[in-house]
Amino acid sequence: MSLTELESHISFGGEQKRFKHASLTLNCEMNFSIYLPPQYKTQALPVLYWLSGLTCTDENFTTKAGAQAYAAELGLILVMPDTSPRGEQIANDDAYDLGQGAGFYINATEQPWQKNYQMFDYISVELIDLIDNNFNTNGKQSIAGHSMGGHGALMLALRHPDLYYSASAFAPIVNPSQVPWGQKAFRHYLGNDPQAWQTYDSCFLLEHYQAEPFPILIDQGTADNFMPEQLQPEALEKIAKNRNWPLTLRLQQGYDHSYYFIASFIENHLAFHKQYLS
Amino acid sequence: MSLTELESHISFGGEQKRFKHASLTLNCEMNFSIYLPPQYKTQALPVLYWLSGLTCTDENFTTKAGAQAYAAELGLILVMPDTSPRGEQIANDDAYDLGQGAGFYINATEQPWQKNYQMFDYISVELIDLIDNNFNTNGKQSIAGHSMGGHGALMLALRHPDLYYSASAFAPIVNPSQVPWGQKAFRHYLGNDPQAWQTYDSCFLLEHYQAEPFPILIDQGTADNFMPEQLQPEALEKIAKNRNWPLTLRLQQGYDHSYYFIASFIENHLAFHKQYLS
Repeated sequence: MSLTELESHISFGGEQKRFKHASLTLNCEMNFSIYLPPQYKTQALPVLYWLSGLTCTDENFTTKAGAQAYAAELGLILVMPDTSPRGEQIANDDAYDLGQGAGFYINATEQPWQKNYQMFDYISVELIDLIDNNFNTNGKQSIAGHSMGGHGALMLALRHPDLYYSASAFAPIVNPSQVPWGQKAFRHYLGNDPQAWQTYDSCFLLEHYQAEPFPILIDQGTADNFMPEQLQPEALEKIAKNRNWPLTLRLQQGYDHSYYFIASFIENHLAFHKQYLS
Repeated sequence: MSLTELESHISFGGEQKRFKHASLTLNCEMNFSIYLPPQYKTQALPVLYWLSGLTCTDENFTTKAGAQAYAAELGLILVMPDTSPRGEQIANDDAYDLGQGAGFYINATEQPWQKNYQMFDYISVELIDLIDNNFNTNGKQSIAGHSMGGHGALMLALRHPDLYYSASAFAPIVNPSQVPWGQKAFRHYLGNDPQAWQTYDSCFLLEHYQAEPFPILIDQGTADNFMPEQLQPEALEKIAKNRNWPLTLRLQQGYDHSYYFIASFIENHLAFHKQYLS
């Protein structure tokens, strides 16, 4: 579990770093970015994992969200993994919504994806171990993400309430088994039986959830072109209401699907998670 | 002077837009980005022009600096021009520090650059007219920039104290006629006579400045690889001290030349300019 440092920059008094490591889960070399706030020099801190959307790497959020300013105030470590396995030897597809850059945070069971596309285990097992073993964390973590990464954050937290104290998302795919992006990915990665898709669908998971509820915050821009067909956050909100689940959905007037939207509200998300990680 | 809108995003309650227009000064089509804060809906506002560094376009600062958060609080319009004329028909060079992406904010007198490389006039005449005619500004502006753009900001303000209320820079090239980046660019754009270079050199300009002083703020990272050979901000600070000029140079411990450095201190720069633009 050794790390190779690729980059290091001082940012808001803390350190913005990028590492590569050999992933045993994904059978390839992976990059991740990490922000260590100024408080890290003197104390163990909680971690917020950020899962990015389709086509992204670990660098989109790192360079565009402006989150370091708020993580530095709140004393949060931020960890930004990549969105899929990567490399010339790794299965891929020409489409932007399948293959590299589009891992969907699932464990693939179908060929040619099975060998490398094990992002569910990578994020929830290997990466947490890697971070906890190499950085001075306090053992607490929450999870957030955007679009495909919003799906990943909600779904992982619903599957692993033992791991994550809170979950939040920007414009998440909440019901992937019912929308084109999710159906395409799940058919390729998980096969044609929709039953196999349900354990990666946040709407299904919330409906059947049995453990103690944890808080969820969702922001959705009303000018987001993907909202009507791909996102539909109201579907998750409806289930949450029926189950008295602590879910807040905020419809943000005029905002779109871009990082300008994320940057505008990331301070709220970090403050939200900080409450539960303290 | 008509504008074509290329992009529009809501950002921190305001609008982040990108336009193209036909530049009469540069004889080509140019893009610029502009941030209109929420206060813009109800009042005329001052403008901060941001000049970027080598290899950048109007988009680097726009997507990476996180400045919109603070411009939205302070009620500042931000305008981000490109760093040179652009296009297949425009003179260029394979090097990153000459030609497209490396306009150095001068008016070229040499071939093949003269026809298009008139960035000094573009920024200080055409762009200000374009912005004031198409947006509800209050007629006041200041100027800031990074590296080559820090040179541009300081030099333009020293040449045009009639136009700019204040100037600030991150890691500026303050003495371009004495350092490799500036000497190479000036030799190509302005010819071999170093006398022709002086009117674009902030150290020379500050030494010979006769009008009313205006405030200057400079941030320089101490881990910036370019500091010793290319930047040397102490040279400008020394002249300022001799002339009792209101210049503040802050050496920021451990910061490098990247946008992580800019993002960490851009709030201070916007607040600095706001004082003089109110």
